[in-house]
Amino acid sequence: MTVLVPYPTLLSTVAGVFRERGVPPDRAAVAAEALCHGDLTGMSTHGLVNLTRLYLPLFDSGRTAPAADMAVIADRGASVLADARRALGLWSASQAVELAASRAARYGIGMVTLRGATHIGCAGYHAARAAAHGMVGLIASNCGGQRIAPAPDGREPLLGTNPLALACPAGDRPPFVLDMSTTVVPTGRVRAAARAGEEIPPGWLASPDGTPVTDPEAFDRGDGRLLWLGGAPETGAYKGFGLGLLVEVLAALVPGAAMGPLSSVSRDDDIGVMALVLAPSALRPGFGEDAAALFGAVAGAKPADPRRPVTYPGWQEGERARWRRVHGVPVPDELYEELRSIAPALRAAG
Amino acid sequence: MTVLVPYPTLLSTVAGVFRERGVPPDRAAVAAEALCHGDLTGMSTHGLVNLTRLYLPLFDSGRTAPAADMAVIADRGASVLADARRALGLWSASQAVELAASRAARYGIGMVTLRGATHIGCAGYHAARAAAHGMVGLIASNCGGQRIAPAPDGREPLLGTNPLALACPAGDRPPFVLDMSTTVVPTGRVRAAARAGEEIPPGWLASPDGTPVTDPEAFDRGDGRLLWLGGAPETGAYKGFGLGLLVEVLAALVPGAAMGPLSSVSRDDDIGVMALVLAPSALRPGFGEDAAALFGAVAGAKPADPRRPVTYPGWQEGERARWRRVHGVPVPDELYEELRSIAPALRAAG
Repeated sequence: MTVLVPYPTLLSTVAGVFRERGVPPDRAAVAAEALCHGDLTGMSTHGLVNLTRLYLPLFDSGRTAPAADMAVIADRGASVLADARRALGLWSASQAVELAASRAARYGIGMVTLRGATHIGCAGYHAARAAAHGMVGLIASNCGGQRIAPAPDGREPLLGTNPLALACPAGDRPPFVLDMSTTVVPTGRVRAAARAGEEIPPGWLASPDGTPVTDPEAFDRGDGRLLWLGGAPETGAYKGFGLGLLVEVLAALVPGAAMGPLSSVSRDDDIGVMALVLAPSALRPGFGEDAAALFGAVAGAKPADPRRPVTYPGWQEGERARWRRVHGVPVPDELYEELRSIAPALRAAG
Repeated sequence: MTVLVPYPTLLSTVAGVFRERGVPPDRAAVAAEALCHGDLTGMSTHGLVNLTRLYLPLFDSGRTAPAADMAVIADRGASVLADARRALGLWSASQAVELAASRAARYGIGMVTLRGATHIGCAGYHAARAAAHGMVGLIASNCGGQRIAPAPDGREPLLGTNPLALACPAGDRPPFVLDMSTTVVPTGRVRAAARAGEEIPPGWLASPDGTPVTDPEAFDRGDGRLLWLGGAPETGAYKGFGLGLLVEVLAALVPGAAMGPLSSVSRDDDIGVMALVLAPSALRPGFGEDAAALFGAVAGAKPADPRRPVTYPGWQEGERARWRRVHGVPVPDELYEELRSIAPALRAAG
């Protein structure tokens, strides 16, 4: 059912596909790592499956500019506003984090806010770059002008799934990486269930009158609306919707990118991205040790069921990635064949 | 059942109580406004009810220092690390936002990160100060070393309810103010239901084996655990827990405040606070107009039920506050009597 592909093979294959589309080699390597991060960590809805479904069509339709450089619009030292000029978001979001980290090293905090971006893939991949520098990284990205989920009291879709990610070092343990859509699940989870012919749990979709919908195909038919984190109003739907708006503000209103509620066309062009990096070590000694102690204590907390230890977001993904870097990344047969059909490098390895 | 108290009377009464405890007059006025904000906006679990239950005991036991000045530990221009030195959090969180806003005006972004704080009241009150400057304000506060909610797979409480607030101007409309605990509800909502003898909805508390608990008294008895935003694992419990950890990182790990998982005593001393302010107008023109357009479009979205218009977090609270500033703030009889017994100013007005 799956082919175990060596991680370096997967990376070089995908990087080759991007290079063929005109992405400069160093950027293609970053973009490939960002895309394969989904499969490496198990967040497969944001991995290779999106290569032919999402990214290649962006090149074909001219909605991404493979070699565009970021254009700085304003620079206030600790903060930078830039236009990503339709460069591949898989790369430009990482570039934004690296620039924010260099500013944070000086000012204690650094923010790069982008307009004109394209889909960034796993937000957590980019945020984790800050953790690798011993810093804290926060990424927020809206979905450009795309409208996916309605307000809790609304009739029509209004905002995107608006992901939010935070990464923080955790000593010798895998970094803490929270990587979440502000809707209950991202659309990829719903569509993966639809492709697999599986039912989805109540609480992901609802009909316009609020009845739970467990048929994932209802989403693309338009009769199942994606719900916000929190579910019903009494268990926090307004918080999930509020977090969606928080991302819209931080990622898109601040830089002046496209926004769902104001867009004439529901399409994920002109995406807004916020890369915020904190450098606690610029403010005090002992941050790294305290971070290791905090996440050590979380991972060491007494479990309710001794067979199921307490972990934190990012731990499982980090452990899985460590195994797969050594032993290979499982790629479903169908996806493997798809990749072979577009990627000469993988054909050679097959 | 309630007494309608003129808002200025309420403010001066509470400020008088704080002044009597040694808080300097200008700080007492801010702290009173922060506390009464709960009653003014309808978030009454974080209002006057906490004066005798939470804040006065802090003075009596010496856990707050009424006249302490904030001590700056490190200053990198765009970011400041300070020790709040047990000053009343109702005041020091606002002071942190004002300082962060002044840095943001110069650098586009400003962060003040506090250790040694005490309970800040409604996080949204402090965040909204940034919106009043035409900026975006983010407040995160942990609960010091207090442990309230367990990890989704954990047996014992691990983190506090860890509030998060974001405020953004919305033109002529009330500002967008998201003010949320990262647990499904704050403890005040559970205790208010217990005082009123009411059942709570399933999804707020669960027994150690995961069964929903609808008796609010189970919380303080210790046999009902407060759940994270997202409810069950398949509807996002790990996101809510992850957001709780996000707040623990931003608010407490960064400045080096007390943290639930590492504390020897579960008590809300040495609270950590992050005040982050973004000044988009330092980066681009048109931010105010775009913000008005965004929240106008959200408030103008087609409702599912025409009798129930779409709003955004902060709209209802803002409208309620506007009415109550003119007509008075409803205070439950029992609370009014409680206030009269400690506040000479209100006695004189009674």
